[in-house]
Amino acid sequence: MIRVGIVGYGNLGRGVSLAINEAEDMDLVAIFTRRDPSVVQEGNVPFVKLDNVKEYQDKIDVMILCGGSATDLPIQTVELAKYFHVVDSFDTHAKIPEHYAAVDASAKMSNHIALISTGWDPGLFSLMRLFFQAILPNGKEYTFWGKGVSQGHSDAIRRIDGVKDAIQYTIPKEEALELVRSGKNPELSVRDKHLRECFVVVEEDADQKIVEKEIKEMPNYFDQYDTIVHFISEEELKKNHKGMPHGGFVIRTGSTNEVHKHKMEFSLELDSNPEFTASVLVAYARAIYALAKNNEYGCKTVFDIAPKYLLQETDEAQRKYLL
Amino acid sequence: MIRVGIVGYGNLGRGVSLAINEAEDMDLVAIFTRRDPSVVQEGNVPFVKLDNVKEYQDKIDVMILCGGSATDLPIQTVELAKYFHVVDSFDTHAKIPEHYAAVDASAKMSNHIALISTGWDPGLFSLMRLFFQAILPNGKEYTFWGKGVSQGHSDAIRRIDGVKDAIQYTIPKEEALELVRSGKNPELSVRDKHLRECFVVVEEDADQKIVEKEIKEMPNYFDQYDTIVHFISEEELKKNHKGMPHGGFVIRTGSTNEVHKHKMEFSLELDSNPEFTASVLVAYARAIYALAKNNEYGCKTVFDIAPKYLLQETDEAQRKYLL
Repeated sequence: MIRVGIVGYGNLGRGVSLAINEAEDMDLVAIFTRRDPSVVQEGNVPFVKLDNVKEYQDKIDVMILCGGSATDLPIQTVELAKYFHVVDSFDTHAKIPEHYAAVDASAKMSNHIALISTGWDPGLFSLMRLFFQAILPNGKEYTFWGKGVSQGHSDAIRRIDGVKDAIQYTIPKEEALELVRSGKNPELSVRDKHLRECFVVVEEDADQKIVEKEIKEMPNYFDQYDTIVHFISEEELKKNHKGMPHGGFVIRTGSTNEVHKHKMEFSLELDSNPEFTASVLVAYARAIYALAKNNEYGCKTVFDIAPKYLLQETDEAQRKYLL
Repeated sequence: MIRVGIVGYGNLGRGVSLAINEAEDMDLVAIFTRRDPSVVQEGNVPFVKLDNVKEYQDKIDVMILCGGSATDLPIQTVELAKYFHVVDSFDTHAKIPEHYAAVDASAKMSNHIALISTGWDPGLFSLMRLFFQAILPNGKEYTFWGKGVSQGHSDAIRRIDGVKDAIQYTIPKEEALELVRSGKNPELSVRDKHLRECFVVVEEDADQKIVEKEIKEMPNYFDQYDTIVHFISEEELKKNHKGMPHGGFVIRTGSTNEVHKHKMEFSLELDSNPEFTASVLVAYARAIYALAKNNEYGCKTVFDIAPKYLLQETDEAQRKYLL
């Protein structure tokens, strides 16, 4: 059995706990939190104060890090790779090289393996981009996100005066998807690709027209998009918009000669973004445990992992039943 | 530059030649054929009699084998793995373990690496099945093929008395695709999943009613399917049905808790089945060349190959631009 620990018990940490339950070859040993463990404790797995994590060095094989990319992971992944094999979902694309370098140094120093930027984007979508580009070099590729909740955009609306709560959905435009699928290699603006739909709860004395104008004209967040604003009651928001659905599409079209066109498409439709991301993290935790047994150390990404390591079945069984 | 050779110059071999042209890091050194090279010769790359292939042992790094799975590859892959790193597209699913064992022994004996069963199914579809199953263990997966030409079914029609020529398209049923995508985990019969559409040219004195009945009632090939038969002229068949389009879908739906469902979907739509398959072979030829440099020997499948090896870009560039 692979002995697994979780650091951070928000939506992603809860999802990892569910995914480990589905994995027959894994035991969840402990959940580490910065909060008071006795307050957070639920279920049978012990909750432990994060300060005491080093005591688990010989009790946990792989630690799955469920903190945020802005401030948690740049510190936690580097620090915890000194004591454990780790997996994180660091998703600030622009800072991946920097994060990689810091984690690599830390993991190599202590003979650990650390897999960063695992999830669906970065992660599965990145893998698809790699496969698609390698196979159809003479082509063009598009990524669309949604339909799904953007936390950043929802937060931006919530900061407007008079707004009590809000949820923003990013929605890929069907016309754009069809144009891409046709193989016409369109040049698409941000407005062409995605629509932004907002569900907003305002204070009683707020002027809806002003709020709507402020949303639609907000620089970078909304001004370059077609934006739809719905004003709804607090009850309706709670009832219909507290899920965390997401998804998206990676599409590449290309050609192999003057006349033959080809389309490769990968898509996800997820009821719960954090639970699905957690499932990806857990599958890759299995993989890095296997690689660690082969004495592979340092920082890795999904690009470095041979697919066979994601399953517990033997190579022989995989060839027989899956190939 | 990776020095590549091609064995077999049918549709797949021609496709490989096109794909190598698109690869900046590869040179096509020679094309080997059982036919008289002077008759087959076209373009600038030398055509060589297959009997003389051993003379190229020091001139070619990776040999891409483009013969058929029934009789060519079981012999050629085993034999040529003694002299070259090789890639094949062996696609008889049931015989993969047997083929693997024979090729593995041969390749290991001579310190070569041999990648078998590469293409889109087996190959990319198998990879997707592996990823999907690893990530959503609690789920159900479906593969649909088409719209595309089935050579086996086309040949079966051609063997009927009174038939001059025929093409059969396998078509996934849209209702079945939608039912699968809904996450209802339907149990689907072969009839539910695919439709068979036939374009048939008959001799002047043939009875179309009898031919149509023979097609529709043909055991295994057609009797379990809804089959549509069109009788057309020889000219129309040549004009509209000589392409080799294909494609398909791998879809998995699953759940992470009682209420949250997820869908993962991969699909291909190909104007030319052999040219696309060739593009996959060429990308994986690059990968096994890299693995050979790391002194990895023996038989491999796509499950064993870390994705990064498919591209010529450095690991660093891949992390920066693709992850």
